[in-house]
Amino acid sequence: MSGEDAPAQQQNAVDQKQETKPAEEPKTESPKTESAPAAAAEAAATTPAAATEKVPEEEAFTYRALVLTGYGGYDKVKLQVKKGKPALKAGEVLVRVKACGLNFADLMARQGLYDRLPSPPVTPGMECSGVVEAVGEEVTDRKVGDKVMVLNRFGLWQEVAVVPATHTFLIPEGMSFEEAAAVPVNYITAYMMLFDFGNLRPNQSVLVHAAAGGVGIAATQLCKTVKDVTVFGTASANKHETISQGGVTHPIDYRTKDYVEEVRKISPKGLDIILDPLGGSDTHKAYNLLKPMGKLITYGTANMLAGQKKNLLAVAKNWYHQFSIHTLSLIQGNKSVCGFHLGYLDGETELITQAMNAILDLYKQGKVKPRIDSTWHLEQVGDAMRKMQERNNIGKMVLTTEPMPEEEKKEEPKKEDKKDDKKKDDKKKDDKKKDDAKKEEKKDDKKKEEPKKEEKKEEEKKEEPKKEEK
Amino acid sequence: MSGEDAPAQQQNAVDQKQETKPAEEPKTESPKTESAPAAAAEAAATTPAAATEKVPEEEAFTYRALVLTGYGGYDKVKLQVKKGKPALKAGEVLVRVKACGLNFADLMARQGLYDRLPSPPVTPGMECSGVVEAVGEEVTDRKVGDKVMVLNRFGLWQEVAVVPATHTFLIPEGMSFEEAAAVPVNYITAYMMLFDFGNLRPNQSVLVHAAAGGVGIAATQLCKTVKDVTVFGTASANKHETISQGGVTHPIDYRTKDYVEEVRKISPKGLDIILDPLGGSDTHKAYNLLKPMGKLITYGTANMLAGQKKNLLAVAKNWYHQFSIHTLSLIQGNKSVCGFHLGYLDGETELITQAMNAILDLYKQGKVKPRIDSTWHLEQVGDAMRKMQERNNIGKMVLTTEPMPEEEKKEEPKKEDKKDDKKKDDKKKDDKKKDDAKKEEKKDDKKKEEPKKEEKKEEEKKEEPKKEEK
Repeated sequence: MSGEDAPAQQQNAVDQKQETKPAEEPKTESPKTESAPAAAAEAAATTPAAATEKVPEEEAFTYRALVLTGYGGYDKVKLQVKKGKPALKAGEVLVRVKACGLNFADLMARQGLYDRLPSPPVTPGMECSGVVEAVGEEVTDRKVGDKVMVLNRFGLWQEVAVVPATHTFLIPEGMSFEEAAAVPVNYITAYMMLFDFGNLRPNQSVLVHAAAGGVGIAATQLCKTVKDVTVFGTASANKHETISQGGVTHPIDYRTKDYVEEVRKISPKGLDIILDPLGGSDTHKAYNLLKPMGKLITYGTANMLAGQKKNLLAVAKNWYHQFSIHTLSLIQGNKSVCGFHLGYLDGETELITQAMNAILDLYKQGKVKPRIDSTWHLEQVGDAMRKMQERNNIGKMVLTTEPMPEEEKKEEPKKEDKKDDKKKDDKKKDDKKKDDAKKEEKKDDKKKEEPKKEEKKEEEKKEEPKKEEK
Repeated sequence: MSGEDAPAQQQNAVDQKQETKPAEEPKTESPKTESAPAAAAEAAATTPAAATEKVPEEEAFTYRALVLTGYGGYDKVKLQVKKGKPALKAGEVLVRVKACGLNFADLMARQGLYDRLPSPPVTPGMECSGVVEAVGEEVTDRKVGDKVMVLNRFGLWQEVAVVPATHTFLIPEGMSFEEAAAVPVNYITAYMMLFDFGNLRPNQSVLVHAAAGGVGIAATQLCKTVKDVTVFGTASANKHETISQGGVTHPIDYRTKDYVEEVRKISPKGLDIILDPLGGSDTHKAYNLLKPMGKLITYGTANMLAGQKKNLLAVAKNWYHQFSIHTLSLIQGNKSVCGFHLGYLDGETELITQAMNAILDLYKQGKVKPRIDSTWHLEQVGDAMRKMQERNNIGKMVLTTEPMPEEEKKEEPKKEDKKDDKKKDDKKKDDKKKDDAKKEEKKDDKKKEEPKKEEKKEEEKKEEPKKEEK
C-alpha cells in the first residue's frame, strides 16, 4: 500500500473483499513503506554488510507499478509510483521490465473471479519480458544484462519485478521484448494442452475457440507443427482472413452460426481434441462433439465474464451449467476430460521449463511466432483490458513500460485528475453508493472518448505492421 | 438355441432376462436349425449355384460352442454342439478357433453387467486365435491357412467363428495360439490407455491395479518399453515375486496395506498415470493420488463384481460411490480423467489396427510377451471363470478348443448328468425356488471338488513351464 496515490486507493475501497487483509503478500511487490526497516533487517540477516550500505540507494529508488485497488471495472487497475528497491533473496533476480502480456485470467482477476491473485491491493501480471538488473545469491544461470521472459503467479505489471530465477527464460536471438512478453502464458498453455493432455498426432482434428485470441493463435501455430492436422477455429467473421492465414483450416463465425453444426458438416464423426476456454454449456457441447478416444481440455470459464464488473447472473449461469461427468459415461464413450490452468501449476518448474524449451526450439525453427495485436502504455491498461474483453483483438495485447509521450497523456490527465479530486472529496465509506453512481457516469464519459484514442493508437502502430503479422 | 442340449437350456431359464427375445442375433452363431432353409435361401441369393450344392455339406457341419444361457453363476455358460456351417458375407472370414482369451468383461457379462453382450442365449468371447478356413468375397488381405488372432464384440468362444476380416490380425512368427489369444484385449487396452490417453513418457510413474491380471501384466510390460518408468503394482503378496520379475518396481499388497499410503511413502507428490479397473471409491482415491498434469484412466467397475451372481448391494455401492467430476476441479488440479473400454470401440478399426501393429512390433523386438496363467478346455470354462474372479491367476486365462482327454472328463459327467436329470425332473417355473436352493447345494459340492481338479490341471501344465513364464 505504499506509493504516491495510496490515499486514493483507500477511498476506492468499494469492494468488500478489498477490506479483508491480503491473504498473501506477493514478493514481487515493493516492501511497504511502513515495514521497510523490517525488510532491511531481514536483508541484513542474510547479507549484513551490504544491506546497511545500500539503504540510502534503495530508498531513492522509485518505479511505476500497476495496482489492482479493488475488484470491479477497468478503472480498478491504477498506475502508482513505488519507492524503495525490492530486496533480493537467494535464488531470485531483479528484472527491469520492458513489456507485459495481458491474459484472460487478468480480466477474471479484476472482477474477483480468479483465486490465484491475492486480495487487492496487489500488482497483477503473470508474464513479462525485460533485462536482468541484479541477481541474488545462488543464482548461477542468469547474469546482469540477460534478456529474459518471465512467468509468475502475479506481480509483473510493473517496471521492476523480483522473481525466482527459475521463473525466467532467456529470450532467443531476434525476438523482440513485445513478442517475448506474448510467449509464456499463451504458448505454454497451448503447448501443454495439445501435446501433454491432448497427445496431438498427425491427421487429427482440433477445435480452437477464440482462435484470434492469444491462446487461440498459439494453439493454431502449434497444431500446424504436426502433419495434416485440421484446425476448426471460432472467431468473428472479420477475423477469418487473418486466422486462416495463421493456419485455421475451417474458420467458424460463432456469432452467426452454430459451431457444433458447422463442425459436424465437415467432420460428422466429431473431433479428436477440443480446447474449451468457455465453460458452462459450451463444455457440454464439446463433450458431445468428441470422437471416441477424443480429449476435451477445458481451461477457463470465459462465459462467466459478462460486462466489466462481476456479473452474478453470468457466474451463476456458468455454475449451473457447469459440466460434471460420471466415469461410466467416460468409459462408454472412450473419452477424456482434462482441466488445465497454468496459474495452478506453480511448483511445476520442470514441466514448465520443458514446455518452454520446446516452444523456443520451434520459434528458432521459424515454426511459431507470437502475433501482437497492439501495444499499450501502462496508463492505458484499462483500455487494453476493454479491447480484450470485448474481443476486438487479433493476437496478443501487450503493455509497454516505455514512458507515454506527453501529447498522448494530454487526453488523460483531466480525467485522472477529476477522479482523484473526487476521491479526495469523499473519503468516507458511507458515501459509497453516491460514489459508485458518480463513477458509473464517469465511466460512460470515458467510453465515449475511447474509440478516438484507440484509432490514434492503431495509427501509431501502422508503422510496423510487417513485424506484427505472421 | 439349436444344439444338442437345447432342452437343458430351456429348463435352465431361471433368469427373467433370458425369456426376453434376443435383441441381436450374433452373426458368429450357427443358423438356427429351424431356420436353416431360410439361411440356405439367403446364401443362394448371393451364390446361387454353389449354395445348392453345399447344403448337404453345410448341414453335416457341426462344431462346439459355449453359450451363455442366462445371467447368473459360473454354470450359466454351457457347451453345446451347433449344426450347419455359418454363411460368409462379403468382407468376412471363417476362423477355425484354436484358443480363446477370458476377460473380466466376460465375468461381468455373465452376471448381466455388461451391455455390449446381447441378451442370452449368446456365445460370449471377445478374442481368440485360429486359422482362416474360408474367406468371403472382397477379402484381399487374408487367405485360407493364415494364422490369425481375432478381436470381436462377442461370439468367439466356439470352434468356428465368422468375423469381418478387419477384426483379424496375422499372428507373428513364433507366437503360439495360446499367446495369440492373450494379446488382443489386454494389450490393446493397456496400449491405448498408456500411450493414447496416458501419453506415457520417460521418468513417469504409473499405478497398475491387479498387476498380476491380464491387463496388469500387459501394462507393466508396456511401461517398461519407456525409459525409467516407475511401476507401482497392486497384487496379493504371493504374486509379488512374479510381478516384480515382470517389471513392477513397487509391488503393493492391497489386501493388507493401504495402497494410497504405500504410494505416498515412495512418491509423496503422487503419480503421473493411474489405471483404474476398480471403479467406485477407488476412483476417488486415484484422482487424489494424481500429480498435476496427471491422468486417471478408468476402464472398469470390477468393484461391482462380488460373488458369482449379480450382487445388487455391490452394484448399488459402486453406483453410489461412482466418481463424478466437475470441470472446475479438473482445472484447478490440472488433471485429466479418461474412460476406456475396448468393447465400446467397435467401429474404430483404424485406431485398433494401429495399436495392434505397434504391439506386434514390440513383440517381435522381444519387448512384450503374453504370460499365460493356465489353459482350460471348453468344458472347464466355469472353473476358469471362478479362478479368474477369485483372483487366483497370474496372467491370462486361456480356453483351448482341443478335445478334452477322456480321463479328465470322467470327473465331470456325473455332476453334469445329475444337473441335467434334476432339470428334467422339475420343468416348471413355480418350482423355481426349490430348484435354486438345490442348485446352491450342488454348487457347494462342486466347490469342494474343485481344488483337486485345479491341482491336477496345474500338474498337467508343469510340463511346459518355460513357455509360460516370461
